[in-house]
Amino acid sequence: MTSTFRHVALIGKYHAPSAGAPSESASHALGRIATYLRSLGCDVILDTQSAIHASLTDFPCMDVDGLGQHCDLGLVVGGDGTMLGAGRHLAKYGTPLIGINGGRLGFVTDIALEDFESTITPMLQGEYEEDERPLMQARVMRDDQCVFEALAMNDVVVNRGSTSGMVELRVEVGGKFVSNQRADGLIVATPTGSTAYALSAGGPMLHPSIPAWVMVPIAPHNLSNRPIVLSDSQEVTIEVVAGRDISANFDMQSLASLQHGDRILVKRADHSVRFLHPKDWSYFDTLRKKLGWNEGGA
Amino acid sequence: MTSTFRHVALIGKYHAPSAGAPSESASHALGRIATYLRSLGCDVILDTQSAIHASLTDFPCMDVDGLGQHCDLGLVVGGDGTMLGAGRHLAKYGTPLIGINGGRLGFVTDIALEDFESTITPMLQGEYEEDERPLMQARVMRDDQCVFEALAMNDVVVNRGSTSGMVELRVEVGGKFVSNQRADGLIVATPTGSTAYALSAGGPMLHPSIPAWVMVPIAPHNLSNRPIVLSDSQEVTIEVVAGRDISANFDMQSLASLQHGDRILVKRADHSVRFLHPKDWSYFDTLRKKLGWNEGGA
Amino acid sequence: MTSTFRHVALIGKYHAPSAGAPSESASHALGRIATYLRSLGCDVILDTQSAIHASLTDFPCMDVDGLGQHCDLGLVVGGDGTMLGAGRHLAKYGTPLIGINGGRLGFVTDIALEDFESTITPMLQGEYEEDERPLMQARVMRDDQCVFEALAMNDVVVNRGSTSGMVELRVEVGGKFVSNQRADGLIVATPTGSTAYALSAGGPMLHPSIPAWVMVPIAPHNLSNRPIVLSDSQEVTIEVVAGRDISANFDMQSLASLQHGDRILVKRADHSVRFLHPKDWSYFDTLRKKLGWNEGGA
Amino acid sequence: MTSTFRHVALIGKYHAPSAGAPSESASHALGRIATYLRSLGCDVILDTQSAIHASLTDFPCMDVDGLGQHCDLGLVVGGDGTMLGAGRHLAKYGTPLIGINGGRLGFVTDIALEDFESTITPMLQGEYEEDERPLMQARVMRDDQCVFEALAMNDVVVNRGSTSGMVELRVEVGGKFVSNQRADGLIVATPTGSTAYALSAGGPMLHPSIPAWVMVPIAPHNLSNRPIVLSDSQEVTIEVVAGRDISANFDMQSLASLQHGDRILVKRADHSVRFLHPKDWSYFDTLRKKLGWNEGGA
Repeated sequence: MTSTFRHVALIGKYHAPSAGAPSESASHALGRIATYLRSLGCDVILDTQSAIHASLTDFPCMDVDGLGQHCDLGLVVGGDGTMLGAGRHLAKYGTPLIGINGGRLGFVTDIALEDFESTITPMLQGEYEEDERPLMQARVMRDDQCVFEALAMNDVVVNRGSTSGMVELRVEVGGKFVSNQRADGLIVATPTGSTAYALSAGGPMLHPSIPAWVMVPIAPHNLSNRPIVLSDSQEVTIEVVAGRDISANFDMQSLASLQHGDRILVKRADHSVRFLHPKDWSYFDTLRKKLGWNEGGA
Repeated sequence: MTSTFRHVALIGKYHAPSAGAPSESASHALGRIATYLRSLGCDVILDTQSAIHASLTDFPCMDVDGLGQHCDLGLVVGGDGTMLGAGRHLAKYGTPLIGINGGRLGFVTDIALEDFESTITPMLQGEYEEDERPLMQARVMRDDQCVFEALAMNDVVVNRGSTSGMVELRVEVGGKFVSNQRADGLIVATPTGSTAYALSAGGPMLHPSIPAWVMVPIAPHNLSNRPIVLSDSQEVTIEVVAGRDISANFDMQSLASLQHGDRILVKRADHSVRFLHPKDWSYFDTLRKKLGWNEGGA
Repeated sequence: MTSTFRHVALIGKYHAPSAGAPSESASHALGRIATYLRSLGCDVILDTQSAIHASLTDFPCMDVDGLGQHCDLGLVVGGDGTMLGAGRHLAKYGTPLIGINGGRLGFVTDIALEDFESTITPMLQGEYEEDERPLMQARVMRDDQCVFEALAMNDVVVNRGSTSGMVELRVEVGGKFVSNQRADGLIVATPTGSTAYALSAGGPMLHPSIPAWVMVPIAPHNLSNRPIVLSDSQEVTIEVVAGRDISANFDMQSLASLQHGDRILVKRADHSVRFLHPKDWSYFDTLRKKLGWNEGGA
Repeated sequence: MTSTFRHVALIGKYHAPSAGAPSESASHALGRIATYLRSLGCDVILDTQSAIHASLTDFPCMDVDGLGQHCDLGLVVGGDGTMLGAGRHLAKYGTPLIGINGGRLGFVTDIALEDFESTITPMLQGEYEEDERPLMQARVMRDDQCVFEALAMNDVVVNRGSTSGMVELRVEVGGKFVSNQRADGLIVATPTGSTAYALSAGGPMLHPSIPAWVMVPIAPHNLSNRPIVLSDSQEVTIEVVAGRDISANFDMQSLASLQHGDRILVKRADHSVRFLHPKDWSYFDTLRKKLGWNEGGA
């Protein structure tokens, strides 16, 4: 066979400062996948960090920007967090991503490591479903200066500290006043993030094809303050009006100690992330498995 | 001044078989609006039913199809139900609609009767916001035959009778299995309907610009069965699997006694409804007023 | 050994008019349990209906009132519905009940059929936990006449028909006005019923030891209309104010076609039901298993 | 007339370190109430702090312990927070409390300042409803040492910091394992607290007469992890299993920087708080007003 994708990046647990080296089996998995890809005629390039952690010296490696410029496919080995991290970094290069999971399958890492060969072989030959996920670009403005900037695949969360009371946040969408939110905090989530924290806080699931964010208040003071689905074509502005010890969180990245008057601006990023799935993939199958719905389907 | 809209349809409480004649003040309101429109140089044509109920004999009248063919604007006087009824009937003619409400303002009838003149005069001169709302086209299939067909602006609801237990409904979207829903029933709502019954059942609000339906289970047996926002470009199929005394409801229209195996198909209708609002209209202002959110905005 | 309980009633699927005869294995189970109890020296008396259905002719049988008067223990073989039915009928005799389940364990039938011997043997010798469950006594009053009366172990539900809109219900507790509920319906549940329909409608779980009902609106129009936990020492009155095709449901028993002005009165019944569990039983273990909570406990 | 209560304590905004001196009108209110009480023949004793803040020098004053030992009634002027603070401090003396509110009425401060004379005069003569509210006694144990102890009238909350992920908490009730909670945090609320933070987090309301706590997870990871009502006669133990920057909050009092293994023990305090209300008081009236329910009652 010939792979549709010639230069394939292989990325393990990505940017996980607190987690230490991957376990031996994770290292072994990377080597096994790299070897298999090479046997299919692919040029395999490892993410430098992953190669170091896994002690894999048989393959060339590059940093993530190099991978983005060189490769026409990325294979990510890890959990959803690893996949979302790779997505944030590679979005600007348009590199499509496939997620392989050694443990319990995730929402976006839906290929099991144990029999990855039979699943990815047809994908490498062009038999795949493409699933485009929008990214959020978020900025924190203080006195008209941008003091923080980040991309997020899941959500932007503004919330209170552990010993402080409610926050008050003034929300505008497309320059129009929406509401003053008095709550523990506020989540603005992408469709991808709608099955993560936003779901715990009472939000709906958004199919990935919906061009929308969902805004979900966390423990809102007003009982009629409910989740609202907003167009992703308009900028969302969240201004800190009141509260102490407030932070803004962008996926895993955080800016603590927000001040009154700080504004968090959220808009759709210029680039999206492209996930590839096996041909018979269905988003709904993933929901059923992850959420423990009754089966009973065909 | 000259009105941008020359032929204006005037519609009162529309198709309200159980409601009887409008109150005297409603009749008086219709006459007052008609006279004002004529004074602006508009050709005013009344909906025949409204003219009869209001005993207005000074104006020409037509049935709804005639109004749709002849008029380039419809003024609807009544509540949200009247407006949605007019919308369903006039969608295929593309007639834009303005809603005037004599009582408590609604979600879509947002102009107060008392000072309607100052609000609608600039609108008639072209100063308005347009707000396009999708319609659902729903069919009930039994043994591959369509036994019922209806348009809905709010929602399609499949639910159980008052003394029967749960229903079981098999849902597919775009031909893909989603879930078996065991619940009191299931709502598929448009953005317009997301602030009606679906909200009571725990669904999110959808901004009218979102090209999506929200599917909301009513009292679902499985606690992880939560509202999900679906693209309106794919057909939703709801099959009756189990339960007794089940009906399907399309806005106000109902088909009782569904049988096991019946399938309700819901897709986006070919036409949308065009609502016109005053220039400074904001959907969020309406939400705040209707849901009693704290104000605190500009 | 000697059983603490000398006269033991054995009850299979009880009063199940639509369900037909128990399956062969259910008959076999009854026979096996009866034989085992006799081997322990118990006087085994079968419920007449169960004996007929199971074609068990080797044991004396009685109707339920006879069992209540004669026996000092009841063994119920079936699911939660069977157990609650037996509880409603035997409450006035104070007969304690043990539930044996041949399938997936229930909330109140928590002993597996397959190894029932090892579990019930110590229980018969007095090694058990007692768990007292309150019963509701409900009456429907029309023009000051009682037109229906029932006991309920789970809940009293007043709700709308499948094609009708909201109901409006006026609720009083202990003669004090609580609220006008506009909703699909209203549930008043015991702690036992709090894990059944009330949970699906958004209610909390009530530990069985709490002397309280929980009142849960179904899809309430007002978003601040939330579940409320009420003392079971005061009578709850639900008056039908508006709506069509309304019924009242008491566990499985229903009264359809309620009229405006009808009042449903709910109070704690004079008798409770006594469930016996194995010594190491914990209500929380049951919750974790039934609701699929993470384990992680000792 | 003669007051049933001879020695009356008068307490203004109590222990409000961050709030500064009461406004002039609050001072004026205290003076007006004190003068009125004296005119009825009561011995009026002011809380020392309140007297200083209000510059009231015409009346004797005592610290709170003195008030508890001397007085047979406390009048609290302020909001719900002031009332709960007074309740926590005076519980051990059994002093009954009446709450007078100068602004928007609260859940427990239900007498309007403007016409307080007509409301409290009959109450002072013995015409009142008594409403007993339980108190929680909470301790934080670290390595079997109590490192913090507090009383709470509303709730005990264990939760995460603003930039940290979920906490994991192991809950036991009466020594029995309940669940491992993975969430933003966990609330254990009294009936009084059930209409405060616990309600925002999705909990039910508990009538004050219910001898129970409600345990409400905040944004729980597991969707079947729902509020549960527990007997207040058993101790609740919350052990910190995982998470960072966790704190425990007891009404307004906080202990930050909890460590893994710390255990928060919550049990019913030996003393309750006695609130007095006007004769026609109804808890449900308060709920309707505070939560904006439709009226429609008598």
